[in-house]
Amino acid sequence: MKSVLLATAIFAWITIPVAADDQSLMKDAKSHFKPIPSLVPAVKDNAVTHDKVELGKMLFFDPRLSASHLISCNTCHNMSMGGDDNLETSIGHGWAKGPRNAPTVLNAVFNIAQFWDGRASDLKTQAKGPIQAGVEMNNTPKVVEETLLSIPTYVAKFKSAFPNEAQPVTFDNLARAIEAFEATLITPASRFDQFLEGKLDALDATEKTGLRLFVDKGCVACHSGVNVGGEAYYPFGVVEKPGADILPAKDRGRFEVTKTADADYVFRAGPLRNIALTAPYFHSGKVWDLKQAVAIMATSQLGTKLNDPEIEAITAFLCSLTGEQPRVELPILPVSTTKTPLPK
Amino acid sequence: MKSVLLATAIFAWITIPVAADDQSLMKDAKSHFKPIPSLVPAVKDNAVTHDKVELGKMLFFDPRLSASHLISCNTCHNMSMGGDDNLETSIGHGWAKGPRNAPTVLNAVFNIAQFWDGRASDLKTQAKGPIQAGVEMNNTPKVVEETLLSIPTYVAKFKSAFPNEAQPVTFDNLARAIEAFEATLITPASRFDQFLEGKLDALDATEKTGLRLFVDKGCVACHSGVNVGGEAYYPFGVVEKPGADILPAKDRGRFEVTKTADADYVFRAGPLRNIALTAPYFHSGKVWDLKQAVAIMATSQLGTKLNDPEIEAITAFLCSLTGEQPRVELPILPVSTTKTPLPK
Repeated sequence: MKSVLLATAIFAWITIPVAADDQSLMKDAKSHFKPIPSLVPAVKDNAVTHDKVELGKMLFFDPRLSASHLISCNTCHNMSMGGDDNLETSIGHGWAKGPRNAPTVLNAVFNIAQFWDGRASDLKTQAKGPIQAGVEMNNTPKVVEETLLSIPTYVAKFKSAFPNEAQPVTFDNLARAIEAFEATLITPASRFDQFLEGKLDALDATEKTGLRLFVDKGCVACHSGVNVGGEAYYPFGVVEKPGADILPAKDRGRFEVTKTADADYVFRAGPLRNIALTAPYFHSGKVWDLKQAVAIMATSQLGTKLNDPEIEAITAFLCSLTGEQPRVELPILPVSTTKTPLPK
Repeated sequence: MKSVLLATAIFAWITIPVAADDQSLMKDAKSHFKPIPSLVPAVKDNAVTHDKVELGKMLFFDPRLSASHLISCNTCHNMSMGGDDNLETSIGHGWAKGPRNAPTVLNAVFNIAQFWDGRASDLKTQAKGPIQAGVEMNNTPKVVEETLLSIPTYVAKFKSAFPNEAQPVTFDNLARAIEAFEATLITPASRFDQFLEGKLDALDATEKTGLRLFVDKGCVACHSGVNVGGEAYYPFGVVEKPGADILPAKDRGRFEVTKTADADYVFRAGPLRNIALTAPYFHSGKVWDLKQAVAIMATSQLGTKLNDPEIEAITAFLCSLTGEQPRVELPILPVSTTKTPLPK
C-alpha cells in the first residue's frame, strides 16, 4: 500500500506542473493558430463539386496543358514531395529556371492570396499563370482550349462539371476545376493540430519548447493562423536585410505588384505547414537547411540571434506541422486524337 | 406459335454462321496470341515481393534519381498516359531530346528484351540505362547510392526489401526493386483478351474483321504472343524501306548492339498492347496516326497496300488491345536530409 501511495505522489509531483504549462501553452497557441480542418473548405465563387474535383485532378496531372506536353501542374507541385518540387527554383520549358521557389500547393487554399507576391487573389487566378509563363509551361489559353476540345472525354467531363453552361470548355473553367481539386489538397491531423485540439502529449518536450519560443520570440507576429503564415505581407529584412545570396536585389517582391515604396522587398509570409517537406526555403530557394532558415528569420525579421538549442527546438516544433499527406490515385488521362495540337 | 418459330428461324439464319466464323477466328487467334495474365508474372532472378514492389514504386516516382531532381522514371513512362510520354522522343536533362521514342513500361515484363534494339536483357538492366544517360536523367550510380543512403526511410526500405544482404542500398538493388514494381504494371482484361478467353461478343464486327486481316495479311508473323509483338527482332523495311522521315538513316537499330550486317535497321517488333494510348509510333516517333502506322507497316513489312476499310478494321482491332490500366496511388516520398546531394 505504501509503495502505491509513493508512486502516486511522485507521479503527481512530476506531471501536474507540466500539464499546467501544457494547458497554458495550448491556450496561447489557440489564440494564434487554427487547426487544418478535416473537411474540404468552401471556395469563393466556385462550388467544390465531385465532378469538378475529378476533372481538376485530371487537368492537374495532364502535361498537355504545357506547350511541350512534358510539364504538368504536378511537375512543380509534386504530390509525392510535399506539393512542391524541392528545387531552388523550378525548371520549365526549354530547361528555363523560374525566378522564385515554387510554393507548395498543399493547404494553399488557406492563403490570403497566391504567389510569393500575392499577385493572384485566388487559386483559379493562380492556375492560369504557370500555364502561360514562358519559363514554365509556355502555352496559350487558345491552344489549351483547342487541346481540350479535341479530346471527347474532356468535353464530356467539362459538361458534367459545369452543367449549366452552353460552352463549358474554357480556360476559365479549366482554372476553376483545378482550383476545386487543389482545395481538396489539405493536410489535417499534424501532431501540432492534435495538440491544438487538446492532445497535450502530441508534442514532445523539445517541440513544446519550440512552440513556446515561436510564440514568445515573436515569430508568430507573421506566422499565425491556419497556415502558420500565408496570411499577410511583410518586408524580408524588417530589422536587418539578409545578404544578396539569400535576398537577391533584383527581385523586389510585392513592389512589382503594387509599385508602391512600402512594398519594396515585401513578400507574403511563408505558410509553414509541411515546411519539413518543402526545402529549399525562402522565395529565392537559397537555403536548404531548415535550422539555417530559422536562424536567418530570427536575425532579419526579429533582430534576435537564437542560440543552438533555441534553433533546434523551433525547428523541432516546425517539423510537427507535417500533416497527413493527400493520398492521390493517378488519374488515367483520356487519349489525344488526330485533332489534338502536337507538342512544341 | 408461328411468329415465335419464324423469329427462331431468322435468328438461326443470321447468327449461326457468324458464330461459327467467330469460333474459328478465336481458334486462329489462340494459336498466335496469349492473354495478359491477371496475376503478376514471376521475374527471372528477382522474386517479386511486397516490400520490393513498394520500394520500387517509390523509386519509380522519385525525381532524385536524376541529377536535376526533376526527372523520374514516371516522367517518360507516365502511368497516366499508357506508360510512356506521348512525345516523338523524350525530353531529358537540359531539355535534350533522346534518340528514340520511349516505349511503354506497361506489360514490358513480357518483352523478350528491353529497348527498341533489345540491348538490355531484362527490366533490371534497362532501369540502369536512363538514370545514367546524359540526355535522360544524367546521374551516376555513386550519386544515386549517396542519395539513397542519406535518407533513413530508404535505407530501412532497402533492408526490408533485401533482408539477407549486409549492404542492401546498392544501384543493382535499386534496379531490382524497380523491376519488381514494373512487373506489376500489366494490363489484363482488354476486350481482345476477353475474346481470346471465349467471350465472342467482346469484339464488334469491324474489330473481328481487323483481327482476321491482322492474321491473314501476315502482321502476325512479327506481332504475336502475349504482347502482340515484342518477342523477336526484324528489319524495318523487310520489303520496302520507308523514307528517312520515318526511318532516319543514322539510327541502324540492333546493328549498334551486335555489329553484324544482318542486324542493320533491325528493331524489336513493337509490342502492340495499349497501342491506342501510346502515339506517336515507331522507334523514331514520327507517326502520330495509328492508321498511318498500319498502312506503313503493310507496305514496308508485307509489301501490301491496304485499302481504307482494311486499315480502319485493323486499327479498330488494335484499339481493342487496350487493357485495364494499373491504378497507382502516388507514393509519399521520404524527405531529403542535409546529407542528400543537391540537384545539379
